[in-house]
Amino acid sequence: MTARTGAPLPTALPIALDAMGGDHGAEPNVDGAVQAARAGVSVLLVGDRVALHAELGKHSGSSSLPIDVVDATDVIGMDEHASDVRGRTGASINICTRLVKDGKAAAAVSMGHSGATMASALLTLGRIRGVDRPAILTHLPARGGFTTLLDVGANADVKAAYLAQWARLATVYLKVLEDREDPTVGLLSIGEEDHKGSALVLEAHALLRALHGQGVNFYGNVEGNDIFKATTDIVVTDGFTGNVVLKLAEGEARVLLGWVKEALTSSLQSKLGALLVRGSLRGLAERLDPSTYGASILIGVRGLTFIGHGSADARAVKNAVLRAARAHESNLIPRLEAAFGAERS
Amino acid sequence: MTARTGAPLPTALPIALDAMGGDHGAEPNVDGAVQAARAGVSVLLVGDRVALHAELGKHSGSSSLPIDVVDATDVIGMDEHASDVRGRTGASINICTRLVKDGKAAAAVSMGHSGATMASALLTLGRIRGVDRPAILTHLPARGGFTTLLDVGANADVKAAYLAQWARLATVYLKVLEDREDPTVGLLSIGEEDHKGSALVLEAHALLRALHGQGVNFYGNVEGNDIFKATTDIVVTDGFTGNVVLKLAEGEARVLLGWVKEALTSSLQSKLGALLVRGSLRGLAERLDPSTYGASILIGVRGLTFIGHGSADARAVKNAVLRAARAHESNLIPRLEAAFGAERS
Repeated sequence: MTARTGAPLPTALPIALDAMGGDHGAEPNVDGAVQAARAGVSVLLVGDRVALHAELGKHSGSSSLPIDVVDATDVIGMDEHASDVRGRTGASINICTRLVKDGKAAAAVSMGHSGATMASALLTLGRIRGVDRPAILTHLPARGGFTTLLDVGANADVKAAYLAQWARLATVYLKVLEDREDPTVGLLSIGEEDHKGSALVLEAHALLRALHGQGVNFYGNVEGNDIFKATTDIVVTDGFTGNVVLKLAEGEARVLLGWVKEALTSSLQSKLGALLVRGSLRGLAERLDPSTYGASILIGVRGLTFIGHGSADARAVKNAVLRAARAHESNLIPRLEAAFGAERS
Repeated sequence: MTARTGAPLPTALPIALDAMGGDHGAEPNVDGAVQAARAGVSVLLVGDRVALHAELGKHSGSSSLPIDVVDATDVIGMDEHASDVRGRTGASINICTRLVKDGKAAAAVSMGHSGATMASALLTLGRIRGVDRPAILTHLPARGGFTTLLDVGANADVKAAYLAQWARLATVYLKVLEDREDPTVGLLSIGEEDHKGSALVLEAHALLRALHGQGVNFYGNVEGNDIFKATTDIVVTDGFTGNVVLKLAEGEARVLLGWVKEALTSSLQSKLGALLVRGSLRGLAERLDPSTYGASILIGVRGLTFIGHGSADARAVKNAVLRAARAHESNLIPRLEAAFGAERS
């Protein structure tokens, strides 16, 4: 760890940020870290110390913020293989997860190579006992708020037992981080009836039914349209379907908003009207902006790990860091472990 | 077949419409049939003759239209099992597919029980030689037009070989019905790279690569966001993922347009602007309206079969009937058979 760049560390553990990760390199990471630090969260910027100090220098007053730089000479590039994390202990993401493992950081946050982040977290932090596979949990905007969806991409091929475990993990997550009393869980299928769906869904349905009364409020099967309707708080699915859903939902929102804009500029009359409605529509665009949530948690590993978009901007980085800090303060990992431990005893 | 209700039949074969099917019973079916007949397509209304004649009577001048009523005393209800079609030869959907089989109708169209329609078509019409499983092919609005997606729900569990067959069927469909020269095919996955995706996708990818030069213009893997971007003309996927995609896409469009409307009425100023942009936005809503396409073809069976939404309105019924007539006039089935037959010789 290199010299502190500022004031004494607050008592809370810092968030380790993979500061070279993402499509735009250090800049949005450092900008976001500065914003998070100004909001009171201490951050460890992990990456090339010279580059990071140079970025930090652009922010006046950053030397008084609770930000430290941890040197990492290596970084897993977006076009490299996830399995590369195995040998490269000096890679920034490996240093982040190692800091969490050693109790020197509260969470690892990366906008870099998703596969590498998952692999590094799994290798360094391991799984929560009782969890076969960690999943990526994310939030989609929905009627009245948001819907929590998992897995959105960690596991392309799954077993029914994983889905049942993810339902339990997500239930604890929403209780702890979003103060939801008794969140409902829907199983994504192609028909609401219990007997409809793939072989996987039929098996998972039976497992989820059996979890009723064990802390999982299973609603039953839900369909694609239920996600935006927010029929249930949580939707569980395999990582293939979940990833398609996530990318479709974001892609559709982008195209539809584009069409709205087009429609608003299609004539002189609508252009005039557009001037009047601009303010109201801006709020909608913000609601649909993925950077509002910042990053998605890799849930099921024994340590907080957040994975963001490669295209993340400073706002997304800030929100990811704040969310990670909140997860740490609410003792998410111990509470997940307790939920799984309690069931076995 | 009961007495003709009008003028001599045009020389073209009529479309058999399962006229009792759907959430709203005979009314939208008869209304849609009348609209289609006015556009020059002859229709056989299959269902309760008394009810259908009563509906027809509401349309002045309908007696001079090329519409016939075929009596069917039985109908498969929306809450019954698809397998019920086996024993019930007098059910309206079975009569529709039988009319196609016997060369008395050009196509069967139903807004009723989708599973029953699929089962009836498969049992009565059989499969095109070389096709293991028929798929439901549909169109989603997309940048610059639409994206053709299949399977959207006929097969929850699939083999890689099905996906390759569907790519071939959809290619012929777009060439014949939409005049696309050499439509591109994308394989829905969770990463564009060839080595990413589920075990199923990896296997299907290899099969699709091998079809290159055999009439299938395989682009490679596409992701959820590519559907609205219209990266490829066709997207192939399993019926589970495809059905989730279809329902999510429709559900998201509905919620997002609702939010746009909310935003436009959130203040006096935006209400004023909304008056000016209303006309332009109406065109957008129409673009997103599923009834524009009317119904989806069940592709791979030896006879034209179209399956629509239970909630279909008259416009959807009309468009489905017109599309079915167009598919017949363009010799879709013989051309699909030729494409599969040619490959084996």
